[in-house]
Amino acid sequence: MKFIHTSDWHIGRQLHNHSLLEDQRHVLLQIIDIAKEQDVDAVIIAGDIYDRSVPPANAVALLDEVLNTLVNELNITVIMIAGNHDGHERLGFGSRQMQDSGLHIIGPLTRELNPITLKGKQGSAVFYGLPYADPATVRHVFDCEASTHEEAMQTLLEQVNQHDAESLPKVVISHCFLDGGTESDSERPISIGGADKISPSLFASYHYTALGHLHGPQQKGGEQVRYSGSPLKYSFSEQHQKKSVTLVEFDCSGKVDVSLMPLIAQRDVRIIEGELAAILLAGQTDPQREDYLMVRLLDKHAILDAMGKLRAVYPNVLHLERTGLMAQTRQIDLEKDHIKKGELEMFNDFFSQVYGEPLSEQQQNTIVQTIDALHKGEQS
Amino acid sequence: MKFIHTSDWHIGRQLHNHSLLEDQRHVLLQIIDIAKEQDVDAVIIAGDIYDRSVPPANAVALLDEVLNTLVNELNITVIMIAGNHDGHERLGFGSRQMQDSGLHIIGPLTRELNPITLKGKQGSAVFYGLPYADPATVRHVFDCEASTHEEAMQTLLEQVNQHDAESLPKVVISHCFLDGGTESDSERPISIGGADKISPSLFASYHYTALGHLHGPQQKGGEQVRYSGSPLKYSFSEQHQKKSVTLVEFDCSGKVDVSLMPLIAQRDVRIIEGELAAILLAGQTDPQREDYLMVRLLDKHAILDAMGKLRAVYPNVLHLERTGLMAQTRQIDLEKDHIKKGELEMFNDFFSQVYGEPLSEQQQNTIVQTIDALHKGEQS
Repeated sequence: MKFIHTSDWHIGRQLHNHSLLEDQRHVLLQIIDIAKEQDVDAVIIAGDIYDRSVPPANAVALLDEVLNTLVNELNITVIMIAGNHDGHERLGFGSRQMQDSGLHIIGPLTRELNPITLKGKQGSAVFYGLPYADPATVRHVFDCEASTHEEAMQTLLEQVNQHDAESLPKVVISHCFLDGGTESDSERPISIGGADKISPSLFASYHYTALGHLHGPQQKGGEQVRYSGSPLKYSFSEQHQKKSVTLVEFDCSGKVDVSLMPLIAQRDVRIIEGELAAILLAGQTDPQREDYLMVRLLDKHAILDAMGKLRAVYPNVLHLERTGLMAQTRQIDLEKDHIKKGELEMFNDFFSQVYGEPLSEQQQNTIVQTIDALHKGEQS
Repeated sequence: MKFIHTSDWHIGRQLHNHSLLEDQRHVLLQIIDIAKEQDVDAVIIAGDIYDRSVPPANAVALLDEVLNTLVNELNITVIMIAGNHDGHERLGFGSRQMQDSGLHIIGPLTRELNPITLKGKQGSAVFYGLPYADPATVRHVFDCEASTHEEAMQTLLEQVNQHDAESLPKVVISHCFLDGGTESDSERPISIGGADKISPSLFASYHYTALGHLHGPQQKGGEQVRYSGSPLKYSFSEQHQKKSVTLVEFDCSGKVDVSLMPLIAQRDVRIIEGELAAILLAGQTDPQREDYLMVRLLDKHAILDAMGKLRAVYPNVLHLERTGLMAQTRQIDLEKDHIKKGELEMFNDFFSQVYGEPLSEQQQNTIVQTIDALHKGEQS
């Protein structure tokens, strides 16, 4: 039994108001290629399929396209669960009609556990898809008293424990936050105040646990309890993460072998820092000029249309921080006497960028008088 | 081959801001019962499955429930097309994975016609599901020059005509407006200015055409070109319509037999007209007190909280028209001198309803003086 574990596709997501749909298509096609080359039996998607409970129509069309290729053309079983971003009813629509095709979508939580026994090309396994469910939902569905996410998960896992897998490996699929997990800026917290944390030990006894929610790939409490991470960087905080899918294989004894298969984004998400001139110069020969960038400018003087100048070289600068200017501004704030000089210097920078030469002495006097007059106007 | 033709379920629709979901469940369960009793081979839903392109989650859950019963429990094939209210991509998601289960959803228009050949318990037929598509979409998909809805439909039907059904009956499923069709208040016009009209003769050669869009059941251009109508009344303009599904049966020679199977709403939609006292009296013994009502009050005097009084007897009055009072008001407008008398009478009506007796002469004088003072205030 050999399968790909992935999660947090967040189809339809935007990065700083920029649609990532084409980047998502690019990386999802890589997942299809890996599935094909590795001749896997299944692809497991551990929640947050879409970014929103009501995804845009083109996100729905992209997922449909990917599933048609995997399930109908390549004959690979797909099992997906709803995450905390997904609309459970919407995602689960028609799931009973799809399951015989090899597409298993676990939308709303139900009282009945629906184990999926897959016969692989080499060996079989039983998959237990547990959709994201907060304690209130678990209480409602199971008529129990779970008050924390951990207690809610225990209720769900009791069913898994009681199920007789007939000595086949058990694979649990879940979307939750394991205690000690490393977060990024792009996850929506499951709850406030720590009641969302679940002990990794709950999953210790399964042959493999395919987790979703955290966007960086990581294991928690053991090699076989893993977050695959998202296929793309969804925030600048993830700039140093290596995105991948997790390839999981059971040998005939049920022992698990795990490897990370890297994914290459069409456009990387990264932060560059420096003075404008240096950044523009380096950009001339940067083969990754299409990347999504956050730029931190260290220049201490005002710059006219810095974003426009950067985008002439790096078209996908999404966010600009004037780190240097902010430090300068803070200094000016401290030395109140220098406020006027600050304004004069700002104008001087502006003027010299537009005319290519600094203010003459006469021009400078005019500006000083104007600034004085404005300040007197403010005080009167 | 025996099937039910229905359309325009509009799941999730509201009537005067009142959710109809429970009424829809009630009537959809009747359709399931008819399908079961008549032992049909298929249920055809000719568009406007949902009321909106983004249906509410409970509407999605209701459709899922109905389809699970029809397709999975009763083993009845369901074929549905997107109408002008539906979100084509959303409705069509996963349709390739569903089709082997016996659920065929035709969402976005595609260049390839996907004929569905159904083998019934007695005889077979070929079904051609054509989703609603405006001329611009047809031009885009077929790279043709269709400028009207009629030309667009001709383009789609050419494919049906060219398809070899191997002498099986051809059934076309379409969502459109046939010239001469009778409209209701609850259909969303397909286009403005008449360019939406299609000649019924286009469908003359098929064994049966299952149409959606118009909410009243009707045939157009022949017994075998039919609108099933919606299963519920979705506006007061439909109060006299008899809602039904159409039961269609082909005999061994391909001759079609059509009958209308009535649907009984949990709450009827109707208009009652009369004076308040008479309506309230009749309501005491009205077995249909839960119906959705528009009330036209003929009383010519002001009534305190007429809606509250009506709802004490008829809890689902959704709309109130003061027909009598409006006629009175118009008359008052014509006779300018009587405006003051009008206000006095209004107050008198109000007073006598609150205190159970008319104004005394002294009270009446006080009111006249107050009204006079107010009018003087207006003029100054």
